[in-house]
Amino acid sequence: MSGSPVRPTTHVARHGLGHLRPKLHFSPSAGFMNDPNGLLHDGERYHLYYQFAPGPLAVHGHICWGHALAEDLYHWHDAPTAIRETADGQAFSGCALIDHRNDSGLFAGPGPQNIVAIYTRHRDGRQNQWLAISQDGGLDFEEPAGINPVLDIGSDSFRDPKVFFHAPSGRWIMVVALARAHRIGFYGSGDLLHWQALSEFGPEGMLGIDYECPNLVELDIEGGGRRWVLIISINPGAPQGGSGSQYFVGDFDGERFVPDPQGLRLLDAGKDHYAIQVVEGLPSDQATGIGWLGNWQYCQEVPSEGWRGVMTLPRGLGLRRDWMGGLSLVQHVRGLEPLRVPIARPRIDSSLMPDQPLTDLDLPVDAAVELLLRFHLESLPTAPPGRGGRLVLCFGNAQGERLEIGYDAASHQLWTDRGELRGFSHPFFSQRSAIALGPDRREVRLQLIIDGCSLEMLAQDGEYSMSSMIYPAAPLDRLAIYVEAGQAGFGQLELNRLQSTLTRS
Amino acid sequence: MSGSPVRPTTHVARHGLGHLRPKLHFSPSAGFMNDPNGLLHDGERYHLYYQFAPGPLAVHGHICWGHALAEDLYHWHDAPTAIRETADGQAFSGCALIDHRNDSGLFAGPGPQNIVAIYTRHRDGRQNQWLAISQDGGLDFEEPAGINPVLDIGSDSFRDPKVFFHAPSGRWIMVVALARAHRIGFYGSGDLLHWQALSEFGPEGMLGIDYECPNLVELDIEGGGRRWVLIISINPGAPQGGSGSQYFVGDFDGERFVPDPQGLRLLDAGKDHYAIQVVEGLPSDQATGIGWLGNWQYCQEVPSEGWRGVMTLPRGLGLRRDWMGGLSLVQHVRGLEPLRVPIARPRIDSSLMPDQPLTDLDLPVDAAVELLLRFHLESLPTAPPGRGGRLVLCFGNAQGERLEIGYDAASHQLWTDRGELRGFSHPFFSQRSAIALGPDRREVRLQLIIDGCSLEMLAQDGEYSMSSMIYPAAPLDRLAIYVEAGQAGFGQLELNRLQSTLTRS
Repeated sequence: MSGSPVRPTTHVARHGLGHLRPKLHFSPSAGFMNDPNGLLHDGERYHLYYQFAPGPLAVHGHICWGHALAEDLYHWHDAPTAIRETADGQAFSGCALIDHRNDSGLFAGPGPQNIVAIYTRHRDGRQNQWLAISQDGGLDFEEPAGINPVLDIGSDSFRDPKVFFHAPSGRWIMVVALARAHRIGFYGSGDLLHWQALSEFGPEGMLGIDYECPNLVELDIEGGGRRWVLIISINPGAPQGGSGSQYFVGDFDGERFVPDPQGLRLLDAGKDHYAIQVVEGLPSDQATGIGWLGNWQYCQEVPSEGWRGVMTLPRGLGLRRDWMGGLSLVQHVRGLEPLRVPIARPRIDSSLMPDQPLTDLDLPVDAAVELLLRFHLESLPTAPPGRGGRLVLCFGNAQGERLEIGYDAASHQLWTDRGELRGFSHPFFSQRSAIALGPDRREVRLQLIIDGCSLEMLAQDGEYSMSSMIYPAAPLDRLAIYVEAGQAGFGQLELNRLQSTLTRS
Repeated sequence: MSGSPVRPTTHVARHGLGHLRPKLHFSPSAGFMNDPNGLLHDGERYHLYYQFAPGPLAVHGHICWGHALAEDLYHWHDAPTAIRETADGQAFSGCALIDHRNDSGLFAGPGPQNIVAIYTRHRDGRQNQWLAISQDGGLDFEEPAGINPVLDIGSDSFRDPKVFFHAPSGRWIMVVALARAHRIGFYGSGDLLHWQALSEFGPEGMLGIDYECPNLVELDIEGGGRRWVLIISINPGAPQGGSGSQYFVGDFDGERFVPDPQGLRLLDAGKDHYAIQVVEGLPSDQATGIGWLGNWQYCQEVPSEGWRGVMTLPRGLGLRRDWMGGLSLVQHVRGLEPLRVPIARPRIDSSLMPDQPLTDLDLPVDAAVELLLRFHLESLPTAPPGRGGRLVLCFGNAQGERLEIGYDAASHQLWTDRGELRGFSHPFFSQRSAIALGPDRREVRLQLIIDGCSLEMLAQDGEYSMSSMIYPAAPLDRLAIYVEAGQAGFGQLELNRLQSTLTRS
């Protein structure tokens, strides 16, 4: 037996870790970040609050709400801690909203800057829902005397309230996780202070150990109509291992969510997409969500130089009639257009030469990159039994590291393989993820964004999402595209540099 | 960029491939095998039919029914091909049963050897259900003139019938997959020849691309009572990637299956458990299933010396009230007791010495091994943030290959890591699988069986299953057990050699 199997968790990267810092994706300047909280458009700016542990070890604990502001969801400016840990407990996940009409009576009067946060206080295993208000546009929050907790059911497993105004019933609706019971509680209120239990949903779908971070949102269907979507994150015990999210499409009548009989859909096929929250204050045709790129299986052990945690890019949310006869969530990265700087638009014809790249491109190492790809792939008779022609995107470097994204034409499946990156190894850090794009061979449409330690991939115009944290020991500075046992035709092949919007050391 | 990313699929094993041949698990002497079919106890013997492609390439195609017989589910004897491909199509998956009363009228009279097979004929994309009878105890089948297909709905996606006699309603019930519609059809018949549509189930749970291989069975609940279980395999698009299975617990009234509101359960947390079929002809307290250890993502490309495909060991099936308040399927390996030959019962105390194994044992290389383990693990303050103490089982060899099974005490999760085995690499061959054992720290109880290219792991007395194909380039001949940042107490540590029951070259 050669040596110990208990391998070091983090390989020391000779290159340092600077290349792992995202340049568009929000990450904390220092400390540990997990769930997005209180996502809000206040009419002028976006607020991104987040679960934050400010310590230098960049691990979870003594959680407060960090805060950043941006006009465009990209150029974030750090703001001071918004909600602190107090004697009443840590400030766990929750939401923010604008109490325009002063329903709560906690403001001087109606106003577009009446910002309310509702969140979970966690102390000694007790979890209940608290309310705080901000009188300064969302920077500082105070908990008004005598009102908190606004909702307490005596539970140790009751968290992550998300509140929105439901116009048809004229009241505020809260969805909140009865986490270990695998139920989502629906509550109603006229004043945000007194909450009436309306209904419960669950157990449904994948249960895992805990339900977390529910979101209920009405989304536009492409081609017309709307439908409600209930998103539930689960941790641990997601089917890909650890943390993951699922959603249900259905109807909400102001009291009860009834899912359509269309089975279960997962939000993401990768290992690292969790706790998505929908931005409050946007109309449904601009519905937007931001998730956390991470997995509790290893998020406190990934390589760190004093910070850990990355958010997804902002994703526009909608619904599309899918091949299964149901509605699938569609996710579009929002607002990238002004940030794109074209690097290459190579015109390539498919080659039959095995093991020779169709194209081989330099990648910038000081910026995020986006690859847009549309192609058809036909298998050749040389394809081995049980597989079709394959197209492989290989992001690599001179050190021999490789990040592979591939497509198999026989089974119409995509894979991501981060196993040949050497910056991080961990028993739960699965290297390979896969997703089946549907039964029919057709044009494959991919959008990949690589930014520091994050890889976001959207396929078929946002119908499939695969998000992965990636830890190359050195920057990935080459992209080669291979075709194996297939004939590819490219409708689009576009490599963009993305302008950096965040300055982090 | 160093070289091509299109790595060879199969690494040539210097050792040869003989060590990959299971010695207890059924595998075909030559050719390609997938789903178990027609599992039947005829009162004396077990019949294992199976999807079989006899060609020397050991890949799928021109499928017929292979056949083996055993008195004990282990000592299988090969029998001739039972159902052949004909001008009417390949013989796809299906079931067998005994028409004791001659309900079909196809036999000379009632009799315990009136064996009927019902299966899918597949030709030119058309799929319908056929019936054949055997007059010689299940060896040879003939399709009686004028009766076939016994069920045809004009579909190209209608397969895998499983039939049983439902005593309360006095008729035969067929469950069959309307595969791409993600529905299970329920049909009833008095004579096995004429089938009446009763109801449909689905879409429910994970849909994937196709539903396949439904099974409906009434199982005993530990402590009393019974409940119906509907098992559905899906491929591709299972949440772990590719092929996988899920089940629903509920009620069946002879016409319709109504699931209990307990959410979705997956049958196995690994990559390689599919198409389980329940053995016909056994009482519920002996309910038994056999699955296929494989995944369509790579099953035709795994290392082969003329054969591919392995069945699970026979698993007794039952239900257990679980911590989620629902019923979980419990799987027990049946019939191992007489095959066990103890190798080692080391008494070990937990050590605090890092990176030194608590014990280091020789493994036989000419037989399957079973490891039975019961332990408590307490984390020590030296555990890094975000993880607990860990116990690691490392099956290795002098070539530096390692198969790791581990447990994290903080999150109560198990992992399997086959990534340090060098006999096979493939983009869809995920190396790491994980499962969460429930919210409470408690005694962990594991049963591992390593037999050639198969690893079956059952945890918590069969409540969790994780099945993985493994391809070491050389035999794994050492087992070391490590504890990291934890203090372990062992209630059981038992290593057994398992007597070989199959002779395959």
